[in-house]
Amino acid sequence: MADPYTRTGDDERPAGIPAIRWEELPEGPVLVLLDQTRLPAEEVELVCTDASVLVEAVRSLAVRGAPLLGIAGAYGVALAAARGYDAEDAATALAGARPTAVNLAVGVRRALDAHRAALGADGDGDERRAAQAALAAARRLHREDAEASTRMAAHGLALLDELLPGGGHRVLTHCNTGSLVSGGEGTAFAVALAAHRAGRLRRLWVDETRPLLQGARLTAYEAARAGMAYTLLTDNAAGSLFAAGEVDAVLIGADRIAADGSVANKIGSYPLAVLARYHHVPFVVVAPVTTVDLETPDGASIEVEQRPGYEVTEAVSPQAPVVGAGGGVPVAPLGTQAYNPAFDVTPPELVTAIVTEEGAVSPVTAQALAGLCARSRRVTI
Amino acid sequence: MADPYTRTGDDERPAGIPAIRWEELPEGPVLVLLDQTRLPAEEVELVCTDASVLVEAVRSLAVRGAPLLGIAGAYGVALAAARGYDAEDAATALAGARPTAVNLAVGVRRALDAHRAALGADGDGDERRAAQAALAAARRLHREDAEASTRMAAHGLALLDELLPGGGHRVLTHCNTGSLVSGGEGTAFAVALAAHRAGRLRRLWVDETRPLLQGARLTAYEAARAGMAYTLLTDNAAGSLFAAGEVDAVLIGADRIAADGSVANKIGSYPLAVLARYHHVPFVVVAPVTTVDLETPDGASIEVEQRPGYEVTEAVSPQAPVVGAGGGVPVAPLGTQAYNPAFDVTPPELVTAIVTEEGAVSPVTAQALAGLCARSRRVTI
Repeated sequence: MADPYTRTGDDERPAGIPAIRWEELPEGPVLVLLDQTRLPAEEVELVCTDASVLVEAVRSLAVRGAPLLGIAGAYGVALAAARGYDAEDAATALAGARPTAVNLAVGVRRALDAHRAALGADGDGDERRAAQAALAAARRLHREDAEASTRMAAHGLALLDELLPGGGHRVLTHCNTGSLVSGGEGTAFAVALAAHRAGRLRRLWVDETRPLLQGARLTAYEAARAGMAYTLLTDNAAGSLFAAGEVDAVLIGADRIAADGSVANKIGSYPLAVLARYHHVPFVVVAPVTTVDLETPDGASIEVEQRPGYEVTEAVSPQAPVVGAGGGVPVAPLGTQAYNPAFDVTPPELVTAIVTEEGAVSPVTAQALAGLCARSRRVTI
Repeated sequence: MADPYTRTGDDERPAGIPAIRWEELPEGPVLVLLDQTRLPAEEVELVCTDASVLVEAVRSLAVRGAPLLGIAGAYGVALAAARGYDAEDAATALAGARPTAVNLAVGVRRALDAHRAALGADGDGDERRAAQAALAAARRLHREDAEASTRMAAHGLALLDELLPGGGHRVLTHCNTGSLVSGGEGTAFAVALAAHRAGRLRRLWVDETRPLLQGARLTAYEAARAGMAYTLLTDNAAGSLFAAGEVDAVLIGADRIAADGSVANKIGSYPLAVLARYHHVPFVVVAPVTTVDLETPDGASIEVEQRPGYEVTEAVSPQAPVVGAGGGVPVAPLGTQAYNPAFDVTPPELVTAIVTEEGAVSPVTAQALAGLCARSRRVTI
């Protein structure tokens, strides 16, 4: 990966592990990311001096998670502008770095719109002020996302308590949705964390989330740091937990929610939705309103990113010797073809509720989602 | 692992890769196993000079798969007897090496019964003849299993053709059920292979099968050698294939089938059964009659082996540097607890058919299974 220089974690790093931060250095502003591909073995920061490094970081999943991608995209436009690069070109490259999470394009757009507005209709405004406007927009998005986390957590916990009176929730989650993907404490994970702080989380079941093990590497790391009672499992072991009555609710995030309520999320979410339905367990999606994309009419219209086969055919481990095409150790015969979609799509009829910062939608219908988005826009304006 | 010496694959090895073979060396008989933990990277043989080495090989999954475990157990008793050890003690140790696959105990019992019968009621018969009787029983079981494979493949293909008229089958399989688990060509895999040879297999979808990747390591290896059109996927990606209408049937093996038709098989089988039901896709179990255990009344009575957490918390890869407690590279924070059952149980109402060497049972009922077992015993006697 094309990172100009990296820093390893040391005592200076705050306990909160910011997943992303803007820093003004004497040589110019930089965007500092916690390299999520190296966790939990190492806390290494990746310093982006221009948007192209950030594009690479997005593609390699050093920075990931729908809400954080939006924030990163906005900062990326601000970085390009502040460093004197073309903000429009940077925006195009950033928005196209990964196709499924709508938040990335939305975040890029917010910073770009602020930049354009400051430049004026003729584009002859002050470049420095335009860069500042883009940065202010990115910072506002960052702050809003943190606030949205807090509100999603409160709405989500209220919903959990309503769905499962009596407390003692045993929650199953998939992939990673905590402070590593957010300006705040995240989406689904933030709800589990709120339940934990309220003394009502009995256990967090953490799906390891193949192929890239975001559950094992990142969610377990966040759960351990928060002092939660958590247990890791292979994705295919969730069925036994459901059958044994050990799961009270499933909480997941979302990368894009279509207008009809179809939810694109990390591969493996849809089988959990089917299992949850079969076992009469609530299946709850937690995501900011920006994840709802009214331009995408339904699940079939969501573009699902297909990732390289080597993520499946080679073992994932930061310290393993470099052997295969993906830099990992082969676990399948050479030449093996792999099917490796990054996401799957869960239809609205399998989703018990969608929790956003504006409240929960249940049952999930196109009308209810449209109403939520309209309300959110009114508040923002 | 306590293997006295190993041999790496060379030109002398036949193309068929026998998973197990008995060999008479000048220094005494040995049981030679293909070490399945090293595949597909290396073809290494593991030579067992006594039953205790075999027990270790069974526990570490160097030898695995329900039918093959039965054969190995029988040879293990014969090996102990031939080497002058106590056959009764060896039988007890072997039968208890892993709890879920009933075939292991059944195979051990067959060789032990032959040994006891040759020794006579007073136990004063010729030890050498008793050892020969145990070996003959093991060889008979080995041969019977190969024959059973051939018959399961024929019955299974006939069933597939009946369920899916028109051919062009796209079959999803889980774990490994080919010649590496059998005296012949296996169980579920043998059916897919028969479809391939008949020109009616469009694709074999191979679940990687976490945590030990028997699908990626072993089934992909067998499919590649057989020239089948196969594609590997993470277990959690199967849902997307079902949703896209890309799976015509699921074929899996079994480690134990209870009297009511509940099927214990590799962890991850049950979620596939639920997905198959949700998508109206046939879910077919292929196993020899010895897998049916009429002594186990139902699914709840099946003891499911719980395996060490490090299989989940550390990366699986034969060549990775030794770091963690399980000899692998940690992929989760230190101290992470894991839920790691080796098997799950699918209730009979989710199983479309059970295919055995004696024919298929569909629908799966206690009565139909009991009838099958009675017929099988009549044939054997």
